[in-house]
Amino acid sequence: MATPSLFLNKVFKNKAKQQLKYALMLLVVLGQFLAGQTRVAASEMGEIADEQSTMLVDKRTFTVDNFTTFGGKTIKQVKVGWEAYGKLSEEKDNVILITHYFSGTSHAAGKYSVNDATPGYWDGIIGPGKAIDTNTFYVVSVDTLANLNAYDEHVITTGPASINPDTGKPYGLTFPVVTIRDFVNVQKALLESLGIAKLHAVVGPSMGSMQAIDWASAYPDWVPRMISVIGSAESDAWTISALEHWASPIKLDTHFNEGNYYNSTPPTSGLVASLMLITQNALTPEFFNMQQSKLASNAQNDSALEAITNDPTIVKWLRQRAEVRSTKMDANHLLYLVRACQLFMAGHQDSLALGLSNIKAKTLFIPSSSDLLLMPYLSQDAHQQLKSLGRDTHYIELDGSLGHLEGVSNISAQATAIKTFLEKD
Amino acid sequence: MATPSLFLNKVFKNKAKQQLKYALMLLVVLGQFLAGQTRVAASEMGEIADEQSTMLVDKRTFTVDNFTTFGGKTIKQVKVGWEAYGKLSEEKDNVILITHYFSGTSHAAGKYSVNDATPGYWDGIIGPGKAIDTNTFYVVSVDTLANLNAYDEHVITTGPASINPDTGKPYGLTFPVVTIRDFVNVQKALLESLGIAKLHAVVGPSMGSMQAIDWASAYPDWVPRMISVIGSAESDAWTISALEHWASPIKLDTHFNEGNYYNSTPPTSGLVASLMLITQNALTPEFFNMQQSKLASNAQNDSALEAITNDPTIVKWLRQRAEVRSTKMDANHLLYLVRACQLFMAGHQDSLALGLSNIKAKTLFIPSSSDLLLMPYLSQDAHQQLKSLGRDTHYIELDGSLGHLEGVSNISAQATAIKTFLEKD
Repeated sequence: MATPSLFLNKVFKNKAKQQLKYALMLLVVLGQFLAGQTRVAASEMGEIADEQSTMLVDKRTFTVDNFTTFGGKTIKQVKVGWEAYGKLSEEKDNVILITHYFSGTSHAAGKYSVNDATPGYWDGIIGPGKAIDTNTFYVVSVDTLANLNAYDEHVITTGPASINPDTGKPYGLTFPVVTIRDFVNVQKALLESLGIAKLHAVVGPSMGSMQAIDWASAYPDWVPRMISVIGSAESDAWTISALEHWASPIKLDTHFNEGNYYNSTPPTSGLVASLMLITQNALTPEFFNMQQSKLASNAQNDSALEAITNDPTIVKWLRQRAEVRSTKMDANHLLYLVRACQLFMAGHQDSLALGLSNIKAKTLFIPSSSDLLLMPYLSQDAHQQLKSLGRDTHYIELDGSLGHLEGVSNISAQATAIKTFLEKD
Repeated sequence: MATPSLFLNKVFKNKAKQQLKYALMLLVVLGQFLAGQTRVAASEMGEIADEQSTMLVDKRTFTVDNFTTFGGKTIKQVKVGWEAYGKLSEEKDNVILITHYFSGTSHAAGKYSVNDATPGYWDGIIGPGKAIDTNTFYVVSVDTLANLNAYDEHVITTGPASINPDTGKPYGLTFPVVTIRDFVNVQKALLESLGIAKLHAVVGPSMGSMQAIDWASAYPDWVPRMISVIGSAESDAWTISALEHWASPIKLDTHFNEGNYYNSTPPTSGLVASLMLITQNALTPEFFNMQQSKLASNAQNDSALEAITNDPTIVKWLRQRAEVRSTKMDANHLLYLVRACQLFMAGHQDSLALGLSNIKAKTLFIPSSSDLLLMPYLSQDAHQQLKSLGRDTHYIELDGSLGHLEGVSNISAQATAIKTFLEKD
């Protein structure tokens, strides 16, 4: 009589098998809290690297003057940070570009110092002898425009929090709307400045997957291989709406003041509420329920019964985590990233079909089967459309129960598939 | 190589089959907008009744003085609205109690006037000759405390927007925290005032399912049969957190003023943002993407590229819909309902196991397989625990693709199972 919900069974099976992983994960997170560490943006998405890197990396700065946006506006000076791992070949033909996720940065692998608690978010697959082998490839990663972590000492970005050279004041909402294409075009300008004219591959998770597939459509002669992890080929109505809920709390905050908060109190409560929702959207019931079981006894919600203004225990945990993350972030930047993702369509043409028809790359789509944010149907759709167009396209899933986060924290589970794909002619 | 995501395949299959249903649904919704109707709370959740009722119903008022809450506080006067369908037997042994969902009211079936555009939300299964047959049963439905639709002319409720007799002013956040148990206790007081000492069954969707199973645990001798639709037996950490995101926008709104907004501008923007999220949580990608395809051409997001302050088209649609619904709702009431749901555990004891062990009722759980809000694992867990306790428990799923909304809009799909279950000895 019962019709089992196979998806949810999948999320909730193998609990025993997952226990060790979660115990480790929570230990790392709690350790960071106790140590008073505030730089948990990367750890949120990448704390479980299978092999900790000892590769040391530097942040560099790239500048473009008079950058024209996809929307036709000019940004007088664009400055972004970037990192590279491995060595550029003499022929400059061994470049893999890594494009980062929404709350991520160009710190994809390695450490800035041996004392860093955690390496870059995809350190599990980027490094000497790893799936993206820095003994073979020159791996480049670039901070996006309006990067969320505007106040992270290791992030260099241009966005609403930057000074507008025309006024000497922060842009705020006068900063032009930027798109995934603009992130791509800044990366292309950087690569060209290095004398590079073609990539070996472009690879990215989540918002990074949007950049990767837009690269493949916009500059097909540059991109022979593209890997989209926990991604999509366009933002459908569901995703556009889901993203709007991330923006709402910031716009409602008393201190938002239409984005003009740089000389006063920033809209931190709104930013925190947004991060709380983002964290939930990126995870799964199983993760939250494991967390709760670590937090408290049965009496955990007593204070929430006493007064409407008291938070339930799990909400306190979620809020505290978001508060720590928020200190390096800018609220306006979050709004601009939301909009970039809302406007995303691979190729940025009149239809997705047109955009996909431009792609020449071999493609590999790797969604996470438990993802509740960018669900696997999005990757399936893109894969199927490319297949219909006769392209060489592949599809595999990350099979864990961390939801969207699988694509960052557990990417090593598909290391072999990634390595094999990158070796394809 | 591919591991198919069976859940999502299920959501997205049978598109053709669903087209007619959606076309009809959208027609009804659009019709309501064009007619300037503002009472769409019920239509949001129940516009597709299979058979339109001609059963005419009245709202009645029930009052309790000095009501003691589960948290030990006193509300001097509780007033709630209620409706009944069918005829109370002389033995008073034919009563089925219907408990309503989060944004619902006691208007479960029938119409107030023949001119009403839509009947009560479960009219498809409540009425003469229907699954819950009013030729046999006396069906009672009661507005909860802090009902969301505080300003609906057909809703009578006591909550933060009510006048505190001690001060002559609205309670605001001085209203005590109320729980699912308090909703149950008000219903019990009403039934007792009618001379009723036992139910035939208690049946409810979503937040109504919480009341139904709490009834079965708190008053096992009253409840021989319980049907939980799109429900759960407790709010797990995932659900408690998910509910918090509904509260956040209201608390952030400039006009919220710690809930003291009754003599000034209410926090409507926050309420609207909350309703936008609730609508999305209750639906599915398929519904949103069908909606988008009705709305606009490819150029739909041009204005969103022009200025960060312009909404994408689908967001405009979602916001407009929420704005219309918000006019009958009170923001503080939403906060209190969120808290009632966050604190929910069947039986309200120290553990769910204890609460469930009290239940004597035969139980039937009907989750929706595409539900992204209260996912089927919640019903499965409750069903399995009751089975382990040796109870007579049953489990079936609603198999459509409307997500959580299936439990209201398409409940008729399980009419036969409900009818059969209610006839069990």
